[in-house]
Amino acid sequence: MSAFEQLMAFEHTTQALGQVAGRLGWDQEAIMPAGAAPQRAEEMAAMESVLHARRIDPQVGAWLSEIDEAQLDEVQKAHVRHIRKTFERTSKVPADLAAEIAKVTSRAQGIWAQARADEDVAAFLPTLKEVVSLKQLEGQALAAGGNVYDAMIDDYEPDMTAAELGAMFDAMRPRLVALREAVLAAKAPPQLTGAFPSAKQMELTAKLAASFGYDFDHGRIDKVTHPFCSGSGLDVRITTRTSDEPFNCFYSTIHEVGHAAYEQGIDRNYLLTPLGRGVSMGVHESQSRIYENQLGRSRAYTGWLFEQMKATFGDFGVENAEDFYGTVNRVNDGYIRTEADEVQYNLHIMLRFDLERALMMGDLSVDDLEAAWNDRFAADFGYAVDKPSNGVLQDVHWSVGLFGYFPTYSLGNVYAGCLNQALRKAVPNLDAQLAEGNTTAATGWLRENLQQFGGLRTPAETIAHATGAAPNGGPLLDYLEEKFGGIYKL
Amino acid sequence: MSAFEQLMAFEHTTQALGQVAGRLGWDQEAIMPAGAAPQRAEEMAAMESVLHARRIDPQVGAWLSEIDEAQLDEVQKAHVRHIRKTFERTSKVPADLAAEIAKVTSRAQGIWAQARADEDVAAFLPTLKEVVSLKQLEGQALAAGGNVYDAMIDDYEPDMTAAELGAMFDAMRPRLVALREAVLAAKAPPQLTGAFPSAKQMELTAKLAASFGYDFDHGRIDKVTHPFCSGSGLDVRITTRTSDEPFNCFYSTIHEVGHAAYEQGIDRNYLLTPLGRGVSMGVHESQSRIYENQLGRSRAYTGWLFEQMKATFGDFGVENAEDFYGTVNRVNDGYIRTEADEVQYNLHIMLRFDLERALMMGDLSVDDLEAAWNDRFAADFGYAVDKPSNGVLQDVHWSVGLFGYFPTYSLGNVYAGCLNQALRKAVPNLDAQLAEGNTTAATGWLRENLQQFGGLRTPAETIAHATGAAPNGGPLLDYLEEKFGGIYKL
Repeated sequence: MSAFEQLMAFEHTTQALGQVAGRLGWDQEAIMPAGAAPQRAEEMAAMESVLHARRIDPQVGAWLSEIDEAQLDEVQKAHVRHIRKTFERTSKVPADLAAEIAKVTSRAQGIWAQARADEDVAAFLPTLKEVVSLKQLEGQALAAGGNVYDAMIDDYEPDMTAAELGAMFDAMRPRLVALREAVLAAKAPPQLTGAFPSAKQMELTAKLAASFGYDFDHGRIDKVTHPFCSGSGLDVRITTRTSDEPFNCFYSTIHEVGHAAYEQGIDRNYLLTPLGRGVSMGVHESQSRIYENQLGRSRAYTGWLFEQMKATFGDFGVENAEDFYGTVNRVNDGYIRTEADEVQYNLHIMLRFDLERALMMGDLSVDDLEAAWNDRFAADFGYAVDKPSNGVLQDVHWSVGLFGYFPTYSLGNVYAGCLNQALRKAVPNLDAQLAEGNTTAATGWLRENLQQFGGLRTPAETIAHATGAAPNGGPLLDYLEEKFGGIYKL
Repeated sequence: MSAFEQLMAFEHTTQALGQVAGRLGWDQEAIMPAGAAPQRAEEMAAMESVLHARRIDPQVGAWLSEIDEAQLDEVQKAHVRHIRKTFERTSKVPADLAAEIAKVTSRAQGIWAQARADEDVAAFLPTLKEVVSLKQLEGQALAAGGNVYDAMIDDYEPDMTAAELGAMFDAMRPRLVALREAVLAAKAPPQLTGAFPSAKQMELTAKLAASFGYDFDHGRIDKVTHPFCSGSGLDVRITTRTSDEPFNCFYSTIHEVGHAAYEQGIDRNYLLTPLGRGVSMGVHESQSRIYENQLGRSRAYTGWLFEQMKATFGDFGVENAEDFYGTVNRVNDGYIRTEADEVQYNLHIMLRFDLERALMMGDLSVDDLEAAWNDRFAADFGYAVDKPSNGVLQDVHWSVGLFGYFPTYSLGNVYAGCLNQALRKAVPNLDAQLAEGNTTAATGWLRENLQQFGGLRTPAETIAHATGAAPNGGPLLDYLEEKFGGIYKL
């Protein structure tokens, strides 16, 4: 076997083991008996130690050196690019630093949860300082003289930089702030009333998943506390939740179906290879967001959903499909990112992006973080944070060392805006289909132009290949202003 | 760290990975989407390759050589005994032979299933010949000059021999044949009538599992085609099935609860060590069988079950608890091992034991297997096999290379007979508790005297420690003759 073939055989096993580790995580969140947690931690650690040893195996380095890339085709080159990146990235971080980060973040998550419950920022700050210091060291190791925060972003969105994101977000922010103010000053659409039994929500949510083409022969839906999508290839499982408010369930489901569609839609020739997974967090989020928002919360699809909900739940206090469209897209004041609507969501993200960038670059101290958060929130949202659990303590991310991850949420929205513009151009009668709960043309276009390629191209190239242009914030802002201008009669 | 400590740290990870592989198997049977099968095969193969490499890792051999066993205590010696055995066993089988067996048996299972569906023995024989030849080679490698079939039994029941099993079974067989004839000549107890909705079966089966102390905080129950128990330590999951006939569900559940009780009952200090699992298939089966039969099908427990079933299903055509005891224990003619009752089950096993022993030792050719099966069946059961799916093609075991496994089922029954005798002596008022659905004293005695020790002692020592005597077939036969003599008024 050639060096390339040997490398790919080795990588095939590594990818399979990665899928196994992911399934363990799914099992833990979705169905594991509670008392199994201590043992599961040992099992996860065992898998991680095996995976880590494979990622830095010197034999991988030897094969990579031996390969003559000039002899490889485009797909083979992409494989090597991904493997080389993982090998070099993993090899750059000293083992003792990686172990220390794992240890501290594991402890920090519990301390954060307690501090949030106690509304006690001071109780979390010493631990957050440790996390930030360790992540800075990791960033320095990865950046090798370059920008520390860029090196972190690169983990989630390869080839993206803080400068590019910052310029994009800074340009978007004033229009989002203005749109938010205008919407919240206008008359709000009606709210749902009535009862929505959990079992009926799950019944309808499965129907919605099917309407978006979710492949139940290669996945399943379970209920969890925090919905997610897990797995690649032939086994891509989604999760959802139910509460008194059914939109939470339905749009969580459609969001996760978007993630799943990407994984389920990748060319099966890439199964258990580096190309057989979504290429970045941003591109992944573009799929979940376009399914959830541009398609799922469209006037056309919500018209169909209105009829489904009436058939499932009877009367719920909304008189017609036009009003219902407003109800689905209603904008409310609120502190919490995960509950935010399309208009406000990106403002939450930009706040976190600017703060974590400053933290990582040493421009903001952990001691000043809460004040900076509260100032920025008041500036963008017009009112003060009332308690830390609604402010700086609301998200788990920083406690577990996720820096550079937040911006990919908004980047996903930006990508979704670009994709929606191109999709609407390519499929002019899309709304007529969506109005019947038929997403075939939309999801087919996304599969054809984006999903099938998996990790073949870089994230930006992936979007550009589908849309014909480099990604930018304009289409998303145009879409939001038009949509909410219409609903709120601005 | 000492060589022993290093060996144990390495083994801890191996055990954790073994648990992960087991969970994948559970997932596949219990909840995996059907279309995921090809990917799952790759994932299982990846786990198996990692586990195999760890089992034969030369470093393990080096640590084993370095350890001075005289310095170890009883528990440490037991750890080393298990690890050494696995290392030597795995190292003895040439890698290409192991790979060939994996390949052929994987193919053979499909060919067997098709042959069974087609009632075509001839279509399976060439493949079975391959399997038998390869397993003989494996047995020769393992036996290293000793008895080939003994070497296979040793995989499932360490230190047991074909000679010992043969002597035990030969002594039991005439009494079982005679009991069977007498029972089937007598008047049969009533059968169930009525409908038993699947959801209600699952509800009651969970209650039965709880009545036997199944720990839902460290396990769960799911429905599958062929029930099994999976996992050790803090995550031990059982499965069951439903059909028109509810006893199938209830006694499958209680059977698997017995297996689970063993795994859940092992000293938690042995978690993720070689001692943290049931010591052998025979001892494992002794726990499932005593829960299912000696306890679950006792007059006392079935009296309680009768009331539970009436409360759950209403009338089902059996008038009182005494009749119901007969209904639960009714003996019917039948060809199928897995559907056999306590009286006939061991005759099915002894048939398979004698045939597979002869196959492995070269005393019976694969071409003569069907005739040998049919002759023996007619001799013990008094009527002819009507078709191969009711005869030589009924079990999957031989197609997947399981030789030496069948006898552990009956050995488990023999052990259960010995344990039941000792338990009844130790807990004189047991029936009064069972009559109220309370198994605490019974399961507590089993945990105290057997389950907690896991792999500390050899299988025979494990039974002898609990019962105070070497295992033998007498108590089981006495129990069966007394029980069925009573029910059938012999």
